[in-house]
Amino acid sequence: MIGVDWGTTSLRAWRLDQDGAVRDRRATAQGIMAITDRQFEPVLRDIVGDWLADGERRVLLCGMIGSRQGWHEVAYLPCPAGIDEIAARLTPVAFAGAAVRIVPGLATIDENGVADVMRGEETQILGAAACDGTARVICLPGTHSKWAVVSAGRIERFSTYMTGEMFAALAEHTILARTIVAGPIDPVAFTAGVARATEAGGLLHHAFGVRTQVLRQGMTEAAAYAYLSGLMIGHELNAALDGVATPVAVVGASTLAALYVTAIASRGGVAIAVDEAASAAGLARLGERASWT
Amino acid sequence: MIGVDWGTTSLRAWRLDQDGAVRDRRATAQGIMAITDRQFEPVLRDIVGDWLADGERRVLLCGMIGSRQGWHEVAYLPCPAGIDEIAARLTPVAFAGAAVRIVPGLATIDENGVADVMRGEETQILGAAACDGTARVICLPGTHSKWAVVSAGRIERFSTYMTGEMFAALAEHTILARTIVAGPIDPVAFTAGVARATEAGGLLHHAFGVRTQVLRQGMTEAAAYAYLSGLMIGHELNAALDGVATPVAVVGASTLAALYVTAIASRGGVAIAVDEAASAAGLARLGERASWT
Repeated sequence: MIGVDWGTTSLRAWRLDQDGAVRDRRATAQGIMAITDRQFEPVLRDIVGDWLADGERRVLLCGMIGSRQGWHEVAYLPCPAGIDEIAARLTPVAFAGAAVRIVPGLATIDENGVADVMRGEETQILGAAACDGTARVICLPGTHSKWAVVSAGRIERFSTYMTGEMFAALAEHTILARTIVAGPIDPVAFTAGVARATEAGGLLHHAFGVRTQVLRQGMTEAAAYAYLSGLMIGHELNAALDGVATPVAVVGASTLAALYVTAIASRGGVAIAVDEAASAAGLARLGERASWT
Repeated sequence: MIGVDWGTTSLRAWRLDQDGAVRDRRATAQGIMAITDRQFEPVLRDIVGDWLADGERRVLLCGMIGSRQGWHEVAYLPCPAGIDEIAARLTPVAFAGAAVRIVPGLATIDENGVADVMRGEETQILGAAACDGTARVICLPGTHSKWAVVSAGRIERFSTYMTGEMFAALAEHTILARTIVAGPIDPVAFTAGVARATEAGGLLHHAFGVRTQVLRQGMTEAAAYAYLSGLMIGHELNAALDGVATPVAVVGASTLAALYVTAIASRGGVAIAVDEAASAAGLARLGERASWT
């Protein structure tokens, strides 16, 4: 089969063996925001046409392709939800010559009645849970970091943190932009930022301290970038690690996942980085259970 | 004398009687960022020239005009600092026909060794402390909210919160921009945001909840604007009210000050709004103590 993680700004496609192994892979910047006039069908055919010509007949899509801005809006499935419930709710879209299905996103409600949603991450979580049976808490860091609790193979609940997006907004659209230079992460400054997040004052105060430390206390502008990154991740961990005793599986690009593993360890937690190809594994697992006829 | 609060984006000038009463006032958008080629002297003469022609010979400036980007960089004075210490450090700049002085900003270091700074707010605090002798905690809400503890007439310490600027960055430069419409503050949604800030999850999670509540739970885009405002102010209060038992004097534009008074009251605190003209009162008090020769 073919698995596709079709997100807002990127598209990743895998050709998968019957046992879920990746035979071939492709990535493009043709996220749904880059598709004009709803030309999802021809774009998909363009990207995986040779695999179809070679005999593939099943295509499973996850991510924002199932949103209102995507190919076909697929209703969120409420948590808790396991692989069988999700596989039972795959939604077909018309495509000549192959069966194409979209994975539903998940919705949850926290103890205070506020909703949260994901699209695409549910598939990564299913893949990561397959990779590592011991981890019950799964972290997917990024623009909108997701933390999910998995129990007996079902996604029980999850929370989203705007960590990556707020980091970018602060670094680019506030006074901090004048005293920060982006670049490779300085590990000492990063860890100092993670630690600062545990001190009194809160994020709104700690963020201003990035500027004063550069102007008054000799922090370099390159270190300020790493420190702010640590500060944001540290504040995410303040909430996300609350009450978490089990190991955390961190699923993401290797550099970012490594930062999270370091930050979690600095808080006394145990974290393991899981291969980012969790999407492919999740798509393979769902594909096995899908009704393709 | 003439008092001027010359900030980054605005300039406010007052003609003051000997007893500190405001005889006349003026406001322009000629903040220091709007001044080209360092033409501070002619701009000032343009704005208060008629008052000078009418006999004024003393001009006291506070705010970012004393920064590196201003007319003349004036070193920060360390806290604790009272009115006499600040008055002793007024810095003259050359100006034909009048004595012009700049008020120094203040610097402080928190218990964890991180610096904080203010320029202009020290003058407002001195003015507000004169207006209301009972309040020991003074809040100046805004782009960068300042909270100061005043004891025996001296500014003991203070903290800055990037509340207003982070609110704007979130509302304009993140995904929240798509589900928020700016407008008058809906008081019910505002108070709900203030309350939400006390719940588990932290600011990074609560901010994402603004979007999900609009998309999934029927919150209007106008209410989302007020809710996000309440959320940000609520997170500021989480830190700023920690350990504060005395009444808080809130100094600022009436609409914003009223929101803070409401938010502080909803947390069981006591707050009073103080006239925003605290700058003029502070400049008058400093002017009385200055050496003008």
